[in-house]
Amino acid sequence: MSKFKKFLLSEKEMPMQWYNIMADMPNPMLPPLHPGTKQPIGPEDLAPLFPMELIKQEVSQERFIDIPEEVQDIYKIWRPTPLIRATNFEKMLDAPVKIYYKNESVSPAGSHKPNTAVPQAYYNYKEGVKRMTTETGAGQWGSALSFATQFFGIELQVFMVKVSFNQKPYRKSMMNTWGAKVVASPSELTESGRRVLAANPDSPGSLGIAISEAIEAAVQDEHTKYSLGSVLNHVLLHQTIIGLEAQKQMELADDYPDIVIGCFGGGSNFAGISFPFLKNNLSNGHDTKIVAVEPESCPKLTRGKFHYDFGDTVGLTPLIPMYTLGHNFMPPQIHAGGLRYHGAGPIVSQLLKDGLISANAVHQKECFEAGVKFARTEGLIPAPETTHAIAQVIKEAEQAKLEGKEKTILFNLSGHGLVDMAAYDQYFAGQLEDYSITEDQIKESVAELDLLTK
Amino acid sequence: MSKFKKFLLSEKEMPMQWYNIMADMPNPMLPPLHPGTKQPIGPEDLAPLFPMELIKQEVSQERFIDIPEEVQDIYKIWRPTPLIRATNFEKMLDAPVKIYYKNESVSPAGSHKPNTAVPQAYYNYKEGVKRMTTETGAGQWGSALSFATQFFGIELQVFMVKVSFNQKPYRKSMMNTWGAKVVASPSELTESGRRVLAANPDSPGSLGIAISEAIEAAVQDEHTKYSLGSVLNHVLLHQTIIGLEAQKQMELADDYPDIVIGCFGGGSNFAGISFPFLKNNLSNGHDTKIVAVEPESCPKLTRGKFHYDFGDTVGLTPLIPMYTLGHNFMPPQIHAGGLRYHGAGPIVSQLLKDGLISANAVHQKECFEAGVKFARTEGLIPAPETTHAIAQVIKEAEQAKLEGKEKTILFNLSGHGLVDMAAYDQYFAGQLEDYSITEDQIKESVAELDLLTK
Repeated sequence: MSKFKKFLLSEKEMPMQWYNIMADMPNPMLPPLHPGTKQPIGPEDLAPLFPMELIKQEVSQERFIDIPEEVQDIYKIWRPTPLIRATNFEKMLDAPVKIYYKNESVSPAGSHKPNTAVPQAYYNYKEGVKRMTTETGAGQWGSALSFATQFFGIELQVFMVKVSFNQKPYRKSMMNTWGAKVVASPSELTESGRRVLAANPDSPGSLGIAISEAIEAAVQDEHTKYSLGSVLNHVLLHQTIIGLEAQKQMELADDYPDIVIGCFGGGSNFAGISFPFLKNNLSNGHDTKIVAVEPESCPKLTRGKFHYDFGDTVGLTPLIPMYTLGHNFMPPQIHAGGLRYHGAGPIVSQLLKDGLISANAVHQKECFEAGVKFARTEGLIPAPETTHAIAQVIKEAEQAKLEGKEKTILFNLSGHGLVDMAAYDQYFAGQLEDYSITEDQIKESVAELDLLTK
Repeated sequence: MSKFKKFLLSEKEMPMQWYNIMADMPNPMLPPLHPGTKQPIGPEDLAPLFPMELIKQEVSQERFIDIPEEVQDIYKIWRPTPLIRATNFEKMLDAPVKIYYKNESVSPAGSHKPNTAVPQAYYNYKEGVKRMTTETGAGQWGSALSFATQFFGIELQVFMVKVSFNQKPYRKSMMNTWGAKVVASPSELTESGRRVLAANPDSPGSLGIAISEAIEAAVQDEHTKYSLGSVLNHVLLHQTIIGLEAQKQMELADDYPDIVIGCFGGGSNFAGISFPFLKNNLSNGHDTKIVAVEPESCPKLTRGKFHYDFGDTVGLTPLIPMYTLGHNFMPPQIHAGGLRYHGAGPIVSQLLKDGLISANAVHQKECFEAGVKFARTEGLIPAPETTHAIAQVIKEAEQAKLEGKEKTILFNLSGHGLVDMAAYDQYFAGQLEDYSITEDQIKESVAELDLLTK
C-alpha cells in the first residue's frame, strides 16, 4: 500500500491541451440534422448561438487542442485538483480493491462544471460577446457559468427552473454573488415564458422551458450568445483535463485503473474522467472497464433507444444522434438534478453503441446510502449526482471480492453536496423514494421519435 | 511578479509538529483561577472535561509538539492547503501590494476548524472516551467535530443554539451525515435546558446556554468529555499548522509578508495563521505587522477590558485573563456567528496587552462589500467571518497606496460561505444592518467583572 493519501500536481504539470476523442473513435458519429430539412447542419446554423471557436471545436478532428493561456490562468485558482486514495473507504469495504478519486469538488463552484464554463466564457469574450444566457436546473451549471463570465466582464442571464429556484435558494445566491442575473423560469422576459404563464400562471417550469427562454433571449440580440453545460462535443472536450491530470497522478501513485467510473447526466463529468483512459484502450492496448452510472429513474443509456432526437424538450435544437428516452420524457423528481436529462451526448452514445464503454443504472436510496458511507469514512460529503458513481464503486468492490481478484478503481468525485443537504435530510428521515420506469412508459415516450426523421 | 498563481506543498512537506507560542512569549500569562477559591486551578480541575493530553498541551512550555501520525493521516485528506496569490483581486485594488491567501476552506467541513477537531477527537479516543459533547452557534465548529469524531468511533452530541438550528438547516444536516446527534438548545436533555424551557418554552437559546448543556452532559458520565473549538491554548496550538505551512509556501513564492491578517472570534484561525510569523518577530528580527480583525458589534480587542472573566455566559468555566466585554455581553445578530463571542483567548489577550499584535474592528456591511469584491475577482465566496479579514486587506492596500510603499499581505481564508448564502442575499437586498456598540453599553457589561475577583 502506498504511503501517500493524496497525489498532487504542481501548476507546471497542469495539462496545456485538452484531448479530443473524435480523433480516435473507430466509427464516426452520424451528423446532426436540421429538424426541418433533415439535412446535416453546418457551422452557420449554430453561429447565432455559439462563438465560432466553439463551433470549430464541436467538429474538430484534431487529437489535442491547446488550452488558451487566459483559461489556464483561471483554472489555476483550483487546478490541478487532487487525486486521493480512499483508504478509509477501502477498509470499510474489506474487498481486494484500491480506490482513487479525483476531487473536482474543490472548485469555487463546488463541481467540475467550471472546467468548461471558463473556456466557453473566454471564447465568447474573444469574439466580442457582451451578454450570455443559459438555463439551469438544480443550479450547478448556472453557478459555474456565473463564476466564469465575471472574469471576462460578460453579463449573464440565467433561467432557473422555478421549482429549483424556490427549493435551492443558495444556488441562486451564489449566482447573484458572482454578478449574474437569475430569473425563475417560466418568466415574463421572453415570449416563450409569457406564453406558458398565460396558460398556467402557477407553472413550476421545466428544463425544456428554461432552454427555450435562454435560446430565445440569446437569438434576440446579436451580442448575446447561448451556452450549454453538457452533452455537446466541445463541453466534453474541455472536461478531459480531469482525466489527463488523473493519468499523471496515477503514475505518481505507480498504479493504473482497471475500472474508471463517472456518474452520467449529459456526459460531461463522465467524459472528463474517462476519455483519456479510453484513448489508451483504443490506441495503447489497455483494457480498462469504463462505466457510466445513471439513475434508474432516467435510464437512457441502459434502456433508451439509439435514435435522432432533440437536445431539448421544446424542440429548438438540431436533431442529434443519441441514446434517448424521448425529448418528452419527464424524469421523476430525484435529488440528482444534474442527471435528470432525457438523452446522452452524441459521442458517448456512439461509444456505447460500439461497446467501448458500459453503463449501469442505480436507484436513489442505494446512491445516498453509498454517499453516507463515503462521507463517514473519507469525510467528504458528495453531491447527489456523485453518489451514483460511489454506489457503482461499491458494486465493483463486491464483485472483486466475489471473484477474489485485485482491482484498481478510479472514480470522479464530480462535486460536493454542501448546497444539497436537504436531500440528505430526506434520506435520514426515510422520505426518499425509488422511482421505477416501466417498459410501457419508455415505449410511449420513444414512440414519436420515428416521426422526427421521416 | 511570480508566474505562479498557487503554491502547493506535498504531503511529505506537511509540518509534523505544531508550534507552541507559550515557549516564546516575553511575558507569561496570568494563571486561570478557580471562581470559588480565586486560586490558580490545576490539571485535576479540568480532568472531568478534557483528556489529560490536552490538559498537558494547555500548559506546555515546549516550543514544538509532535502531531500524532493518526492525526497526520486524517489531515492529509485536505492538507497541506493551497497558498494562493490573489492576482485578480490585486489588479482591482490597483495598489502597490502583493496579496496571498491561505485557503483553509478546502477541508470537507469548509473551514479551518477540523485542524483542532481531529486531534481533539484523537486524544479523547486514546484515553478511552466513548462519547463527546460540544456546543455550536452557527454550526462550523459542530460540523468540524462531527467530521472528526466519526474517524474514531466516538459518539458526538452537539447542542446547537436553537435560533441557528432553525435558520441554518444545512449545518445540522452535515452533522447528521457525519453521524452526530444534534439537538436544539435549550433542550430537554439536561437540567440546564429544562430549567430554561420551564421559564420560557420559546427561548431562542444562546451560546451560553448551549455551553452549559454540553458541559452538564459531559460531566454526568465518566466516559464522556467536552470539547471547545476556540479560545483555549491547545486549540490555538493545533491551528498553527496553517501558518507553518504558509511559511514554507511563502518561501516557494520567494516572498515574506509585511502584514498578516486573520479574522477574530475566540482566536483560533487568527492564531493559526499568525503565530509562526510572530515567532519570527520575537526571535528572528522580523517586523511583520499582525492584525486581528473583529466585528464593530463585538469589539472586545479594540474596546474591551483586560480582566479575569468567565469563558462562558453562565459561569461554569474557570476565570480566565482576557480582553472581554463581560460574559453577559450579548452581541447583536450579525451573520459572522463565529465572531460573536464576548472574550478573547488568554494567549492572544496577553500578546495584545504587550503590543505584539494589533487589532481593528469593521462593520458588517463593509465586510460583505469586501467579500463580494473578492468573490468577483478571485472566484471564491468567503464565509461571513472571513470577510472581516478581507475588509482589512483592502484597508491595508489603500494605506500602502497612500504611502506609496510596496507591501506583501498574507491573510487566512478561514472558510467558504456556501452554507451561509442567506447572508449574501440580505446584503444584496440591502437588508444588512451595522450595529454600533455605545460606550455606555460596554461600561455596563464590564462593570460586574470586578466582583469576580473580589
